Amino acid sequence: MSNEKPVKVALLGCGVVGSQVARLLLETTEDLRARAGAPVELVGIGVRHPDSERPGIDPRLLTGDGEALVRSGVDVVVEVMGGIEPARSLLLAAFASGASVVTANKALLAAHGTELYGAAHQAGVDLYFEASVAGAIPIIRPLRESLVGDEITTVMGIVNGTTNYILDRMTTDHVSFSEALAQAQQLGFAEADPTADVEGHDAAAKASILATLAFHTDVSGADVHREGITTITGDDIIAAESLGYVIKLLAVATVSGDQEDAVSVRVHPAMVPKHHPLASVGGAFNAIFVESRNAGRLMFLGPGAGGSPTASAVMGDLVTVARNRVRGTHGPALSTYRACAVAPIEDAFTSYYISMVVKDEPGVLAKVAAVFAKHQVSILAVRQETADEEGQARLGIMTHVARDAEVTDTAAELKTMTSAVIGRIRLLRVEGQ
Amino acid sequence: MSNEKPVKVALLGCGVVGSQVARLLLETTEDLRARAGAPVELVGIGVRHPDSERPGIDPRLLTGDGEALVRSGVDVVVEVMGGIEPARSLLLAAFASGASVVTANKALLAAHGTELYGAAHQAGVDLYFEASVAGAIPIIRPLRESLVGDEITTVMGIVNGTTNYILDRMTTDHVSFSEALAQAQQLGFAEADPTADVEGHDAAAKASILATLAFHTDVSGADVHREGITTITGDDIIAAESLGYVIKLLAVATVSGDQEDAVSVRVHPAMVPKHHPLASVGGAFNAIFVESRNAGRLMFLGPGAGGSPTASAVMGDLVTVARNRVRGTHGPALSTYRACAVAPIEDAFTSYYISMVVKDEPGVLAKVAAVFAKHQVSILAVRQETADEEGQARLGIMTHVARDAEVTDTAAELKTMTSAVIGRIRLLRVEGQ
Repeated sequence: MSNEKPVKVALLGCGVVGSQVARLLLETTEDLRARAGAPVELVGIGVRHPDSERPGIDPRLLTGDGEALVRSGVDVVVEVMGGIEPARSLLLAAFASGASVVTANKALLAAHGTELYGAAHQAGVDLYFEASVAGAIPIIRPLRESLVGDEITTVMGIVNGTTNYILDRMTTDHVSFSEALAQAQQLGFAEADPTADVEGHDAAAKASILATLAFHTDVSGADVHREGITTITGDDIIAAESLGYVIKLLAVATVSGDQEDAVSVRVHPAMVPKHHPLASVGGAFNAIFVESRNAGRLMFLGPGAGGSPTASAVMGDLVTVARNRVRGTHGPALSTYRACAVAPIEDAFTSYYISMVVKDEPGVLAKVAAVFAKHQVSILAVRQETADEEGQARLGIMTHVARDAEVTDTAAELKTMTSAVIGRIRLLRVEGQ
Repeated sequence: MSNEKPVKVALLGCGVVGSQVARLLLETTEDLRARAGAPVELVGIGVRHPDSERPGIDPRLLTGDGEALVRSGVDVVVEVMGGIEPARSLLLAAFASGASVVTANKALLAAHGTELYGAAHQAGVDLYFEASVAGAIPIIRPLRESLVGDEITTVMGIVNGTTNYILDRMTTDHVSFSEALAQAQQLGFAEADPTADVEGHDAAAKASILATLAFHTDVSGADVHREGITTITGDDIIAAESLGYVIKLLAVATVSGDQEDAVSVRVHPAMVPKHHPLASVGGAFNAIFVESRNAGRLMFLGPGAGGSPTASAVMGDLVTVARNRVRGTHGPALSTYRACAVAPIEDAFTSYYISMVVKDEPGVLAKVAAVFAKHQVSILAVRQETADEEGQARLGIMTHVARDAEVTDTAAELKTMTSAVIGRIRLLRVEGQ
């Protein structure tokens, strides 16, 4: 075995994930050799501050010149630095010099996936990215390979642990969004600037990756309709609870309701029935539902983030890519032959729960129901709460699945009905019925 | 695209799964071509009765001479006929003539896996078998590739839908094993001869496949300790329920408690706490838990059997193998470099629930507890039910994790203590605490 040519690995980034990847590369050399078919050798780590001390890591491995490292004739570049630049340029440089790439960078793939997949394909090398969605949960490979002989119709999941933690706290402790966010920040579950998580950018990037694989079509992060959780109030949580639902931030990718070859890809909070398996996914866990014509409904569940789980996904890709290098081949290229349209959110089909304060007068429900009927939104259930002292009642209406635009038009018209409807109208989508 | 060389496929078997595979091969030709990189062409179907009519299938595809079909220069043989022979000989013939193989045949892999993997490796072709365990649930590829950079410590799951359905009925409707079995047979969930399912042979075959992949070691079906569900009584179900547990038939593969490089692989009924995700897996669903050092706990859930789900798994493998043929390569060979010992059941470490009828006299519990202490089995909880008119009480003891042999020795000694213990002593393992 001693004359096997080693697979040389360059690591870009040595933070929470990178330090775990480095540790595994340095500690599990014998297993890696047996599994990959050749020694897997860490030849350098590109970092911003090469002079900072890093326990357990030989300082001679560290370099501030990532570009030179990538171009030094390595076989595989593992990118766990995050962000768009310089990650994008470094990966393009890797492909240009014939290296395969393993990355955990969802934001980069969501923004520049087409360019990167194309560059990898042209260079005849691998681009693997299991760690980019849902941490350690194997979901990329199942979509890209296990289910590639099936027709996937829906991928729906909880893919952002930070928002799931915040919504959990709001549900369990009945605290406000800002209190829950502060708790999450204190515990290190949320960044100082939480925008990427709470506004749904992170989930949208993951949704675009999942949709691209599931539907064999190009979906970028910008194509994804995105609503965050910052407008979710304690009242929303309580209202959902009283109906037997919990509020979750979902990434949803589904074939469009009435259009051939169109897909709907979106991130938004949604009411999920308590008995639905996604409802009980707590804290920093992720879960993904996949529905397909032949396989039926599958669920994948596990830790969605963190250094070790993400490193596990990176290492699985690294062994696979190393095996391919040893064998002089590469894995499947990205398949986007379908070229589906991404339908605008107006054309999405979902159920809604619409709540509003109405005057407690005879005939109000009839007036409200007439507006739904006019817009062809079919009502599943109505719940009216007793009037208060000021003669106001709270009306909650659950719709059947309807076109999104019809529901928002319904809400807009209700808003103008000041003879019956008072104040804000609250809309929340409902999934997993 | 018109001058692409087609990937020629021979199908062996045209039953519940085979007919679905044939349908998908004939109906989704354009998608298959786009995904595999070349046309995927069904050239023949080997069946026992080629003259029987099969709706939707051109009779000219059917042949009774599977061997000639396999040796006719096909690229891929898809084996969904089941059983050991002639399946084994046909697959060896396939490898000998340079064809790759996709199989759903767990019994064959459990009995002759080493020989078949070896033959595939020697021929430089693929042997894929996602459909052999847990139907449509992607579990083979995640273990073989996604988690290949990690250290798996436990795989535990519900992998037999028939027994899960029977235990479900016994739990929900409080019927006996034989009544539940009769129901399952009536509904087509159990075979006329249910031995393979209810005695755990099917689950043991799957456990051996999962253990081989998870631990990079050769585990055959015969290595698996196996207990079926035929001895589970209504009393067991009720006793488990009253303690907050349900009884499930589990396949368990885990690193051994105290031995380096030994694994424990077993199939047996076990009490699972109701709050555990495996407890709520109902009917014909399958679910598999995987625990690893870095990824943590993952769960995979979905339909575990049936024509369409199993066909989905077969088709995913077929596209992967076809891609490999188009590219002139093959996927990872089976990795068994670890060569772990399979520990005897005596060396397994689990918790137990032990129930017995005792004399309702002072000092009985002390006597019983002393026997546990003598065998170094630590008691977690004791539950004593009030004495009946005959002066007999029921005693239930939950142990901490202990070596299996110590627990059975404890039970054997208790049996001889006729001054305190009356009648049968019932042992049930407890998992997922």
